[in-house]
Amino acid sequence: MKRIAILGLGLMGGSLGLALKAAGFRGVVAGYARRRETGEEALRRSVVDEVFDRPDTAAADADLSVICLPILAIPELARSCADRFKPGSLVTDVGSTKRVLVEELTGLLAPRGVGFVGSHPIAGSEQQGLDAARADLYDHAVTVVTPGPGSTAAGVRAIREFWESVGSRVLEMSPDQHDQILARTSHLPHLAAAALAATVGREPADEALPSFCGPGFRDATRIAAGSPEVWRDIVETNRANLLGELEAFRRELDRAIEAVSSRQPESARTFLEQARQRRRRLTDRHE
Amino acid sequence: MKRIAILGLGLMGGSLGLALKAAGFRGVVAGYARRRETGEEALRRSVVDEVFDRPDTAAADADLSVICLPILAIPELARSCADRFKPGSLVTDVGSTKRVLVEELTGLLAPRGVGFVGSHPIAGSEQQGLDAARADLYDHAVTVVTPGPGSTAAGVRAIREFWESVGSRVLEMSPDQHDQILARTSHLPHLAAAALAATVGREPADEALPSFCGPGFRDATRIAAGSPEVWRDIVETNRANLLGELEAFRRELDRAIEAVSSRQPESARTFLEQARQRRRRLTDRHE
Repeated sequence: MKRIAILGLGLMGGSLGLALKAAGFRGVVAGYARRRETGEEALRRSVVDEVFDRPDTAAADADLSVICLPILAIPELARSCADRFKPGSLVTDVGSTKRVLVEELTGLLAPRGVGFVGSHPIAGSEQQGLDAARADLYDHAVTVVTPGPGSTAAGVRAIREFWESVGSRVLEMSPDQHDQILARTSHLPHLAAAALAATVGREPADEALPSFCGPGFRDATRIAAGSPEVWRDIVETNRANLLGELEAFRRELDRAIEAVSSRQPESARTFLEQARQRRRRLTDRHE
Repeated sequence: MKRIAILGLGLMGGSLGLALKAAGFRGVVAGYARRRETGEEALRRSVVDEVFDRPDTAAADADLSVICLPILAIPELARSCADRFKPGSLVTDVGSTKRVLVEELTGLLAPRGVGFVGSHPIAGSEQQGLDAARADLYDHAVTVVTPGPGSTAAGVRAIREFWESVGSRVLEMSPDQHDQILARTSHLPHLAAAALAATVGREPADEALPSFCGPGFRDATRIAAGSPEVWRDIVETNRANLLGELEAFRRELDRAIEAVSSRQPESARTFLEQARQRRRRLTDRHE
C-alpha cells in the first residue's frame, strides 16, 4: 500500500496515523476531519502527511481508506465518497458494531468494485478526540476483522496485515458472531453499569453518600462514563442482541434477589461463589 | 492507651498491628489468632509484641480490644471474652455492617462496664489473610465510627483518635445510617457485579468470549471476586437495606430495557446521559 486515507481524525483516526508513522509506514497518509482546526492540528502533530477538507478528495487514489467515525456517521460518509474510492481499493472502518455496517457498506461498495472488510479495534472507549490520540492505542489491542459478502480472501488478508502492522492481535469472525459476543461482554456491561450508577445516584440520597463512592464503586461503573452519543449508536445498531443480554441479566438479578430474600445464608453464598467462578473462567488469561 | 489487643490476625488485624508500629505506638500490642501458625508468623513479622492462643487471655488487661474477624464471628468471640475484658476498657470491631453488631455487643458489654463503639474501616476487600497485611492499609482510608447506646463521649473520642493515629479519615454516624449508605454504595454494587459476571459467564457461551473480557469487563466485575463467605455475612446482617437497593436497581434496569426496546435512539441516549451525570456527582471528588 502506497497511500492510506484516514477519514475522521478523532481518537481512533488520530491514533492510527501516529501508529502508522511509528510502525515505519513509508507511503503517504491522507487525512480528512470534519472540523478544519482538527485537520490543521493533525498536520502540525504529523498525524497525517496531507489533509483535505472533503472526504472524497482525501479518499481518491488511496489504496486503503479507513473510516474512523461514530457508527451512524460511517455509512453517510461512505455514501459521500462512494464514486471516488479507487476501483480495486479497500475500505474498512472501526465501528463497534458490525452487522449493520457490513450490510450497508457492502451494498454500497461492492457494485463499484471496491472491497469492504469491516474492522473493530477494541481500544479507547472513554476518551475522545485528537487530543487523546496516541501511537500505542492499537498496540496489543484485539482487533476483530469481520469479512462479509463484499470481501475477497486477498482483501481480508490485507486488512489483517494492516492491523497487525500497528500491533493488534487480529481475530476473524462473522459480523453476527461479533455483535453477539460484544453484546454480552461489552454492551450489556455498559448498560448494567449505567443502571447501577443511576441507582446509587438517585434521589433522595444521604449527603455523606459521595464519601463512600470509592474505588469499588468507581471501578464497577467506570464504563458508564463513556459518551452517550457513541453508546446511542451502539444500542441502535445492536438492539436485538443487547435486549437478549439485558433479559438474561434480569433473570440473574432476580436469582440474586431470591437468594438474598430467602433468609438462607447459604443461598447468597452459593450465588456469589458461582458468579466468582464464572468470572474467573472469563478473566483467567488476563489477571 | 498502654496495651491494645488485636483479636484476629488476618488482613485487617495484621495490618492494624503493622500500622500501630509504623505510627510509633509505644505500648504493648497483644494478638490472638485462631490458627497457631498465624500467631507465630505475626510474632516473626513483628505485627504484635505478644501472641496468645486464647482470645480472653489476649484481651485481659488491654485498654482497647479490636476484634478483627468476619462479621458473624465477632459476637461469638466477644462472648468468649466477655468476662475478661477489663472494666472501663474499650472494645471496637472492624465489621462491614454495624446495626446487628452494635446491638449484640452493646447488650453483652454494657452490663459489664465495658465500652463498645463500632468501627468500619473501609479498606481491603478482595485479599485476605496475614500474608496480605500491610502497614498502610488504613492510611487515607475512610473509617466509619458508629456510636451506640453503650458508647460514652470519651469512648467515641478515643476510638476516633485511635483510627486517626493510623491515618484514617473518620466519619461518625449511627449504625443504621451506616448500613443504609453501605447497602447502596457497596453491597448493591457487589451483588450487581456478581449478577453481571454470572450473566456474561453463563452457558452456552462462544469459545471466543474470554478474548473479549478485557479491562472494561474486568473493572466492572472486579468486586465480585471478593470472598463469598465475607459477603454471605454482609447479606445476612444487612438484608432489608440490601433488598431495598436491589429493588431500586431492578427498576432502573427496567428503565434501561424500556429505553433500549423503544426503538427511539434518543431514549437510550437520555438514559445513559442521566446515568453519567449521576455518576459524576458521586465521584467528582475522587477522579
